[in-house]
Amino acid sequence: MAAPSHQITLYHYWRSSCSWRVRWALAHKQIPYSDVPVNLLANEQNSPSYLAINPGGFVPAISYNGNVFGESLAIMEWLEETFPAKPLLPASATDRLRVRQICQMIVSGIQPIQNLSVMRRYSSEPTEQSSWARHWIGMGLEKLEKIVAPHAGTFCHGGQLTMADLCLVPQIYNANRFNVDLTPFPTLTRINHNCLQIAECQAAAPQNQKGATP
Amino acid sequence: MAAPSHQITLYHYWRSSCSWRVRWALAHKQIPYSDVPVNLLANEQNSPSYLAINPGGFVPAISYNGNVFGESLAIMEWLEETFPAKPLLPASATDRLRVRQICQMIVSGIQPIQNLSVMRRYSSEPTEQSSWARHWIGMGLEKLEKIVAPHAGTFCHGGQLTMADLCLVPQIYNANRFNVDLTPFPTLTRINHNCLQIAECQAAAPQNQKGATP
Repeated sequence: MAAPSHQITLYHYWRSSCSWRVRWALAHKQIPYSDVPVNLLANEQNSPSYLAINPGGFVPAISYNGNVFGESLAIMEWLEETFPAKPLLPASATDRLRVRQICQMIVSGIQPIQNLSVMRRYSSEPTEQSSWARHWIGMGLEKLEKIVAPHAGTFCHGGQLTMADLCLVPQIYNANRFNVDLTPFPTLTRINHNCLQIAECQAAAPQNQKGATP
Repeated sequence: MAAPSHQITLYHYWRSSCSWRVRWALAHKQIPYSDVPVNLLANEQNSPSYLAINPGGFVPAISYNGNVFGESLAIMEWLEETFPAKPLLPASATDRLRVRQICQMIVSGIQPIQNLSVMRRYSSEPTEQSSWARHWIGMGLEKLEKIVAPHAGTFCHGGQLTMADLCLVPQIYNANRFNVDLTPFPTLTRINHNCLQIAECQAAAPQNQKGATP
């Protein structure tokens, strides 16, 4: 079932790694959408006008047929079911489990703990915040390298681009922001490099969004 | 496709809320499995013998046909695809998006930040750790109440038990451990109460596992 794609609106923030995942999925599947930037640094996600749209007050979110939904991985699963062409999950259930495990290791195992709000709650000192982020990203990528390496090819799942890559690249972007040493993670680094050659990945990247600053 | 279910082994810890999710899914779908307790308090997840089985060093994990996979939500999606009877996801893609959003709000939005290792990194003081957990659980449940309430019935998704409930109940258990005031969350509290009447939920509950202590 192909939904009328013009009905999709994406609420996102240019630098949000979770937003990048969804932008890339939309670009990969060539689904047209309109977009509304939400400036997290200006706390726009908690403005009355945004909370009226999305009571959860988070980005990314999509509006579709009058409903608004958040959570990047839930949105990606919905995109996969609704627009099955150019699949981002493998064909077999076991392979999908492998890919979803990688996604969750990033989406629930790394990103939330190095999130801006968590860093700020941990410390008001920027150096302490960075140290916190570096610790959790480094520890998470160490586990991820072990899980990804045995089945990796060009991408996390052999030669097929999957949701796992769409989660990995934005996380490596965050790792670089916080100066995580990536040399212990040759597989992840190689996959990241390969993905950054893809036009849709670049089109969805932070620096290429409205409102991006150097 | 029904997999030979006797091949499933679950590695889990009695008090782990993520383990409870998977135990409940297995019980709900009446899938036989063998289980191996992994004592997180004794750091058994990082023992050489466990790392040889699961290099990621986390629980829950399942072993199946010689492969080991972690991440509770990825496992639940695999169980849903492999054992489709007694479904834990609704029939329509939009409803599945709604349910998966709730799951992710808990699995990536709340649980990881109040995890034991994160609390310990934040502070060595038990009262500080509890205060940290209370903050993040309370904030997460506040958003969740708003998202769940409009479509809730007996369960998070009307009258159908779904993965959302399997994520919610263990999170409310954690909320109670840390003395989170649940009175602002009448919908979540009601659903939790309804779920706790279900035999499979109780069979999977922490206090009913091997090695559980009062």
